[in-house]
Amino acid sequence: MAQKPSIPKGTRDFSPEEVIKRNYIFDTIRTEFKRFGFQPIETPSFENSSTLMGKYGDEGDRLIFKILNSGDFLKKADEKALAEKDSTGLTSSISEKALRYDLTVPFARYVVQHQNEIEFPFKRYQIQPVWRADRPQKGRFREFYQCDADVVGSNSLWQEVEFVQLYDAVFSKLKLEGVTIKINNRKVLSGFAEVIGEQDKLIDFTVALDKLDKIGEEGVKKEMREKGISEEALDKIQPIFNLSGSFAEKIEGLRSILEGSEKGLKGIEELQFIQNAIEAMPLKTAKLDLDVTLARGLNYYTGAIFEVAAPEKVKMGSIGGGGRYDDLTGIFGLKNMSGIGISFGLDRIYLVLEELSLFPDTVTQNTKVLFINFGEKEAFYAMKAVTKLREANIMAELYPDSAKMGKQMKYADKRNIPFTVLAGEEEMNAGKFTLKHMKSGEQTSHDLNGLETALK
Amino acid sequence: MAQKPSIPKGTRDFSPEEVIKRNYIFDTIRTEFKRFGFQPIETPSFENSSTLMGKYGDEGDRLIFKILNSGDFLKKADEKALAEKDSTGLTSSISEKALRYDLTVPFARYVVQHQNEIEFPFKRYQIQPVWRADRPQKGRFREFYQCDADVVGSNSLWQEVEFVQLYDAVFSKLKLEGVTIKINNRKVLSGFAEVIGEQDKLIDFTVALDKLDKIGEEGVKKEMREKGISEEALDKIQPIFNLSGSFAEKIEGLRSILEGSEKGLKGIEELQFIQNAIEAMPLKTAKLDLDVTLARGLNYYTGAIFEVAAPEKVKMGSIGGGGRYDDLTGIFGLKNMSGIGISFGLDRIYLVLEELSLFPDTVTQNTKVLFINFGEKEAFYAMKAVTKLREANIMAELYPDSAKMGKQMKYADKRNIPFTVLAGEEEMNAGKFTLKHMKSGEQTSHDLNGLETALK
Repeated sequence: MAQKPSIPKGTRDFSPEEVIKRNYIFDTIRTEFKRFGFQPIETPSFENSSTLMGKYGDEGDRLIFKILNSGDFLKKADEKALAEKDSTGLTSSISEKALRYDLTVPFARYVVQHQNEIEFPFKRYQIQPVWRADRPQKGRFREFYQCDADVVGSNSLWQEVEFVQLYDAVFSKLKLEGVTIKINNRKVLSGFAEVIGEQDKLIDFTVALDKLDKIGEEGVKKEMREKGISEEALDKIQPIFNLSGSFAEKIEGLRSILEGSEKGLKGIEELQFIQNAIEAMPLKTAKLDLDVTLARGLNYYTGAIFEVAAPEKVKMGSIGGGGRYDDLTGIFGLKNMSGIGISFGLDRIYLVLEELSLFPDTVTQNTKVLFINFGEKEAFYAMKAVTKLREANIMAELYPDSAKMGKQMKYADKRNIPFTVLAGEEEMNAGKFTLKHMKSGEQTSHDLNGLETALK
Repeated sequence: MAQKPSIPKGTRDFSPEEVIKRNYIFDTIRTEFKRFGFQPIETPSFENSSTLMGKYGDEGDRLIFKILNSGDFLKKADEKALAEKDSTGLTSSISEKALRYDLTVPFARYVVQHQNEIEFPFKRYQIQPVWRADRPQKGRFREFYQCDADVVGSNSLWQEVEFVQLYDAVFSKLKLEGVTIKINNRKVLSGFAEVIGEQDKLIDFTVALDKLDKIGEEGVKKEMREKGISEEALDKIQPIFNLSGSFAEKIEGLRSILEGSEKGLKGIEELQFIQNAIEAMPLKTAKLDLDVTLARGLNYYTGAIFEVAAPEKVKMGSIGGGGRYDDLTGIFGLKNMSGIGISFGLDRIYLVLEELSLFPDTVTQNTKVLFINFGEKEAFYAMKAVTKLREANIMAELYPDSAKMGKQMKYADKRNIPFTVLAGEEEMNAGKFTLKHMKSGEQTSHDLNGLETALK
């Protein structure tokens, strides 16, 4: 009995149309990465477990896909864990490799391992799939691509500026106008905590603040109170909720809130630098906005924090994000390597382009002309023409079998092939080809050179 | 204590130069696949184990990487296998997914699963990595890419012709001249076994014959004798060893050997068709040759068998191969789907191009001009120019820090960036940029438009 074929939950097959559209996005991103001086690297799909485990917290450890050792793996299995049926305890003795969970940790590993071959600052990009044993749900997959660009080995704020430009360049090329590049700075968040005298509650504070969009001002304050932040402190940060206006106006507002915090003022200075540069070199279609509630990945970001929001008319979470982290490679023994990076959310960008009908029609156009197969002699005549057209860069195909005309026409139709060529005995004798425009039904007669010209 | 970073044996990190060169090969192959009307699909990196197991023989089953179930996997573990420490017996109860071992089985699964969305004949290509738990050795990896093109749903010999043309097109584009596309036909091999009355020894016979290159005529005969093939049979096939000359001459030789076998004559007819077509539409740089010893993948090929040999001056195994298989999708319940496909050996092609210095210099050229950073004000001036050049499609970078001049120049040098721009206070006041050609040391002065022109 044959198996009914299926794929594991949370994974996807991609049809030709989907691959072509995805490649359009990848190619656009890649082209801009290159233009900005980023160089590609690739790392293996699986790493030694020790490279990945412990880098993403307990939850991350659980979501990493582990690869079973080959051969008689039970031979080296932990006897005690086996006897106690302790799955977690057994894992490390029967699995030494694990699938990549993101691109950042493998990149840090790469930088440390190859530090003597690399010229710093090192601007690298990486576009590869990652795997997570997450519970699959709408829009969340167990295999998905990440598109990352990072720079390591320099503290220069010009990199923050470049990443803003890079986001703008990519989304402008994709004709996705009206995205908002939100920026914040970890030092500003630290400054808030300092000013209200709650430095030890920085995480609780920012986690609550990050929810402003969803739960509103009162909700945020309620959560802060629950976390033990005093009324006095809440009074002090009230101006945060009143920040508004342009980037420059928000900066001024921030300045008065943070005047007591050296760290906070440093954060403002950094934001100001980026804003000045972008003002002098205006973005094409994106908007840069200061969002002091932005806190993503607080655990490791130390400076700038980025997040990109799709145009307001589309209901969609962030389509990109990133930030600066002062010690990317420390976990692998290379200290003092400041890094900054951003990421593009491929799956969400795809959905946004689809929703706004922004994929160019030409993207999915493949074969341009199908030669109808009338039999062996005619096919020979047609195949010679196909070969010549292909050399002239025209995507041409011969229908492989001399099937019924209707079937062949239907095939051209279903595959959206815009032209067919009919060349039977009559055409052969005259050295001609009848070109049919599928949509209009119009037919014209050409010799081979004329056919090439007509199709170009 | 920080870990000393490393990667699992049999896997590879790819440096920017390697990724760029590999992408050059991928892009060339992809462009030709498209030109010939093939459409891309992608399948998940891991499949349900039941999809893969049992499709590649016992050895294949052992070499498939299995993914450990997430969570408390021991809960569902086979008690008996656990108690007996039977690794093989335990596997299926603690692992439900496995990494893709090749692209052919997932493709067959895809065709069956999506048969109602597909227009047949379906010409698909697929370029994705596969994983094998093979013992790593020189040139053999545990993760490597396969580049496959297949057609399913038609028996037409025009496809064999197209695949020969496709091989020729790709290798010509790569400027790898002088490859030999060897062709054989499974029906010819069956015919041999029939003629000598040893149909039941077809596999032994062809496996021995396949070694002619390595062990010579006497070696082959010795092995055949050991497998129980009679002296009488060996006499009958003697003409096989004497086949020589052109394709057409070999065909004539074959005809006299196989005149008693209907199947064999059918194989000759197919070879003849392909040869006639290629003669009428000459290949650009490759040579088509008949090689009756070719037997690769005999288990499933039913018609044409292809193998591509690198130019003779390079010592390298085959750089491509493929063939026709009459029942690709039968294992998943869809009968009577003839398929034919070919594959390109990326890693070997890479080595051949490297050995013959065939990678174009332009391939690895990345950033064209580095702006030296003289401090904040100057960097601002430079960054405006960088932004403008990038918009004009010139890959420009600003060195992010105002480091010592020597360090910045060394960076440009190490990264093979051909030009630097020096713009200090003097240039700023004059609205100029000093462009330095790194190799010659020559310096010229330009305004921004002039700089763009000079760099184009």
